[in-house]
Order: sequence, then C-alpha cells, then structure tokens
Amino acid sequence: MKRSLILFAHGARAASWAAPFERLRDGLRAQLPGTPVTLAFLELMEPRLPEAVAAQVADGAADITVVPVFLGQGGHLLRDLPLLAEQIRAAHPGVRLHVAGPIGEDPAVQAAMADYCVRSLS
Amino acid sequence: MKRSLILFAHGARAASWAAPFERLRDGLRAQLPGTPVTLAFLELMEPRLPEAVAAQVADGAADITVVPVFLGQGGHLLRDLPLLAEQIRAAHPGVRLHVAGPIGEDPAVQAAMADYCVRSLS
Repeated sequence: MKRSLILFAHGARAASWAAPFERLRDGLRAQLPGTPVTLAFLELMEPRLPEAVAAQVADGAADITVVPVFLGQGGHLLRDLPLLAEQIRAAHPGVRLHVAGPIGEDPAVQAAMADYCVRSLS
Repeated sequence: MKRSLILFAHGARAASWAAPFERLRDGLRAQLPGTPVTLAFLELMEPRLPEAVAAQVADGAADITVVPVFLGQGGHLLRDLPLLAEQIRAAHPGVRLHVAGPIGEDPAVQAAMADYCVRSLS
C-alpha cells in the first residue's frame, strides 16, 4: 500500500508563519523519497485537511499518516481533529488514516526544545 | 546579575494544552539549578508575560531571557510580543530583557520534529 504523510498545522494570517512547516516538509521529502509529504492547515491557510487527503488519495495513497505539528493538545486536537478524521474516513472508506500524537509531546522533541532554551540563556 | 528564563506560550482553553510546556519547564528547572524558570502565556491562560516578568524581578532577576515556545512566527511574535517587550522594558528599566527566536525555527528542534514524523509513519 502506498503510504504518505501529512503535516497538519494550525494556520495563521501571516504568510511568514508557515516557513518552519514548509522547511520541515521539504526536509522530509528529501529524507523520504517515494513518500508524498504535504502540509494541511486547520484554519486561515490552505489546503485544509480534507483537501490535502483527497489530493493524496487521487495520487494513489492508501495509507496516510497525519502528524499534528502542534505543541500542546487543546480543543483543536481533542475535538476538531477527531471530527475531521471521522469525516475523512467516511469519505475514503478504502484508505487507512493514522493520526499521530502531537509533535510537541514527543520526548525527543521536548529534549531538543529544552536544549534550545539552555542555549538561548543570555 | 541574576539570570532567569521565561517560557512564553500561546495559551488555550483546555488545561490539558499546557502539559508539554509544564514538562519543559520542570525539565529545565532540573537542568538549571539556581536559574528561575517560569511559564507565561499570551492569552487564555495565566500568568501573562508582564506578570511573569514582575514576579521574577521581585525575586531578584535582572537578566531575563524569554523563549517563545511557538512553532511559527506569525502576528503574535511579529507584533504582540515586541509590544509586550517594549512595555516591560519601560516598566523595568534596570532589567535586561532578551527575547529569543521561536523554538520551532531552531534547526535542532526541526531535526527532532522530522525524526518524529519519520517514526510516526505507519
């Protein structure tokens, strides 16, 4: 089954906000040749998650992993994302949709963030 | 000069959202004995940044580093935070306030996030 990856971020008004997510996507594309990697946003930016999934399905993906590029787990991940995932599964019954935990709760990401804080101390 | 660290995050309605920031703070306290480390929020959660700074200043801090625990650089970091920093500097002229770049743009944090995405692939 062709697998693919969607980085799901909040979205913002300022275009500059998306820069680190685009860099993350570009790095993953280089690291994972043959695995489509695209961005999707909850609000304010395009594409939204259903459109991003539809595009990957049209491209042949049947096993899609969504990584929430969020630091904390608030209402967006506790309510909005499960609802979106449910709608997406109903729209694409042949597709396996796996939703990972938020990136900010990963211990290795936490350790890298702590290191950055220590290095930032003046 | 006594230095201290403030982790500045967005804030959210769900209390669960703050968990990774509290974990980051607790880890840094263990890593940096003698350096006060506290949280501050832009909105929806307490304390806000001016109150967090005032508490550290009352505690003797004179060299405060603020690390924005944000992934992207949108209006909150481009407009709200510089304005807050300006007000804080005016309120505490004897205090050095250093504002770091957003945690999500650090290359080592980016690398850890990329690793997490690869590991999350089903």
